[in-house]
Amino acid sequence: MSTRPQQKPLPDQVLTPVTVIGLGAMGSALAAAFMAAGHPTTVWNRTAARAVPLVAGGAAHPAAVAEAVAASPLVVTCPTTFEDTVEALGPAAGALRGRDLVTLDSGSPEGARRAAQWVRGHGARFLGGAVKNVPPAVGAEETLLYYSGDAEVFGTHEPVLRVLGGDTVYLGADPDLAALYEIAVGGTLLPALVGFFQGAAALRARGLEAASMVRFSERWLEMIASVLPVLAREIDSGDYSEPLSSVNVFVAGAAHDAELGREAGLDVGWHEPFHELLDRAVEAGYGTQSIATLTEILREPRPAA
Amino acid sequence: MSTRPQQKPLPDQVLTPVTVIGLGAMGSALAAAFMAAGHPTTVWNRTAARAVPLVAGGAAHPAAVAEAVAASPLVVTCPTTFEDTVEALGPAAGALRGRDLVTLDSGSPEGARRAAQWVRGHGARFLGGAVKNVPPAVGAEETLLYYSGDAEVFGTHEPVLRVLGGDTVYLGADPDLAALYEIAVGGTLLPALVGFFQGAAALRARGLEAASMVRFSERWLEMIASVLPVLAREIDSGDYSEPLSSVNVFVAGAAHDAELGREAGLDVGWHEPFHELLDRAVEAGYGTQSIATLTEILREPRPAA
Ligand SMILES: NC(=O)c1ccc[n+]([C@@H]2O[C@H](COP(=O)([O-])OP(=O)(O)OC[C@H]3O[C@@H](n4cnc5c(N)ncnc54)[C@H](OP(=O)(O)O)[C@@H]3O)[C@@H](O)[C@H]2O)c1
Ligand SMILES: NC(=O)c1ccc[n+]([C@@H]2O[C@H](COP(=O)([O-])OP(=O)(O)OC[C@H]3O[C@@H](n4cnc5c(N)ncnc54)[C@H](OP(=O)(O)O)[C@@H]3O)[C@@H](O)[C@H]2O)c1
Repeated sequence: MSTRPQQKPLPDQVLTPVTVIGLGAMGSALAAAFMAAGHPTTVWNRTAARAVPLVAGGAAHPAAVAEAVAASPLVVTCPTTFEDTVEALGPAAGALRGRDLVTLDSGSPEGARRAAQWVRGHGARFLGGAVKNVPPAVGAEETLLYYSGDAEVFGTHEPVLRVLGGDTVYLGADPDLAALYEIAVGGTLLPALVGFFQGAAALRARGLEAASMVRFSERWLEMIASVLPVLAREIDSGDYSEPLSSVNVFVAGAAHDAELGREAGLDVGWHEPFHELLDRAVEAGYGTQSIATLTEILREPRPAA
Repeated sequence: MSTRPQQKPLPDQVLTPVTVIGLGAMGSALAAAFMAAGHPTTVWNRTAARAVPLVAGGAAHPAAVAEAVAASPLVVTCPTTFEDTVEALGPAAGALRGRDLVTLDSGSPEGARRAAQWVRGHGARFLGGAVKNVPPAVGAEETLLYYSGDAEVFGTHEPVLRVLGGDTVYLGADPDLAALYEIAVGGTLLPALVGFFQGAAALRARGLEAASMVRFSERWLEMIASVLPVLAREIDSGDYSEPLSSVNVFVAGAAHDAELGREAGLDVGWHEPFHELLDRAVEAGYGTQSIATLTEILREPRPAA
């Protein structure tokens, strides 16, 4: 933003007006963050009732999505998927010309490419992004968001987007890069949580509280984070010969899963594919090499059962 | 340790002599840490060659395991499993009387109970522990180790054990508690790593380096750690009705897995059990409730296929 000292603008002319489409848990948090930073904010949601708290806070709330899109040069979308966004914007297609559209919803890289094509076909510029945190963390200094697509859109609106999180990153011009990183990075979440839930279930079967393991699990996730640079280096170099942790160490650990299931009365069936991946790594001769060799196994088609 | 000012002991009489049995990656790191802290250290490994670097650093290295056990009041074991430890100590059973035995190997709670019984049967006291970090982190201030079993053993040797990591915790008198927590807490590791490897494979299929996602994955693991207290509270209270993330949000995300597999040419078959757990949660009526309801699903026997 260039400041022009000779003619001081009124406060609501200083900041870019923003429209937020899709007011679920995340979209509502995004709109609230823009409002807190003083941006004139327009909101729209398929189910109008969800806009009520934001309207009470001062957001504009036209009935028609086309009017909401027309209200701001910058339009941020947050329905569930890219397909939902395109569906929501359908009646506003004619209002898109000249807008900058930033998606913060989820989907596959292919979904991002299709959304970008549709948006550009209606004369708007496209930036695809992802919020890598929970709604209450929107606006925090350490909250990560990454974007890809139109570099000028990012350049122009970076200060506005930074309102959503201090760790704001541009990945490149391909409109689907953010969706690709989103899936690549996000892939640890559900598996890690299920691992945590299993541990919680094992403790509760013993009459202990899940809360008693939280501090240890936090440390353990820090430990996992600390080895990622080493694992990435192994993967990028293809040299797995000096492992921090070998496939064989994990094979030895896998043997205890069935015992845990028996002892704590848990369904440990979800481990089976992991055992199968380890077996395939051993068969491929990777036993004494790094556990990161599983990356190579995942890149091979699965053998027919 | 009580200091007796009137008769200053020689340096090597001040610190408890320690024997380390099992000199793999971890056992060697443990022995090195005791030596660095000035403890008279005796080592023994099934394959004697692995003792060479430690002997060069000043460790005693008798040929017979019984002699190694007899050499110190405190004996720390680190073969792969509890069963391996009992096997390794077999010829030293007669030398165990009066020793304090601390295991830092892995296994099931049942394995820990059996090892404790065997050790106690030969007149030694038992403390079962686990190192929650990689060998290069042994000795660091933030490295976590937890122990359970004989409270007096922990009380007597806590300053010695703290040499292995500054975050040293006693969990309770049951000899298998450390093994239970070890499995409960450790259960996130392989699943999280496989999620990371899949992401790395997806990036490499696109010609990007795995290293380019590390910083984002680190942040993501921090985010996961930050929600564990909330999830544990839901699990301990059984109230899943105000979710940070609902089962349905994960169901929506699961739909993209197949697309990722197609697009990046990856084997995403390992997701199937996760989809099945989500399906069972939805069938149980948990769709709009917290993802932590999967804890309840894991505690039910799996329906016959
Ligand atoms: N919650 C999180 O922790 C989190 C974290 C990071 C990223 N995200 C991402 O943020 C996005 C939204 O998630 P959320 O948690 O806000 O979900 P949510 O609370 O379930 O809300 C979903 C939103 O999408 C709208 N929507 C869905 N399908 C639509 C369609 N076909 N047409 C119009 N609107 C539609 C819903 O409108 P109605 O109100 O009319 O149903 C609602 O506003 C997702 O892509 C999610 O992956 C969420
Ligand atoms: N490495 C890690 O990142 C890590 C982290 C935390 C905890 N741990 C735990 O530390 C323990 C050891 O792991 P590690 O990484 O040091 O493994 P490792 O490098 O594979 O070494 C295994 C050790 O166990 C010995 N051993 C195995 N079976 C034996 C038997 N039946 N009798 C006598 N000795 C036997 C081996 O002796 P030989 O040399 O004669 O084969 C070797 O000293 C495991 O419980 C592991 O879970 C490891």
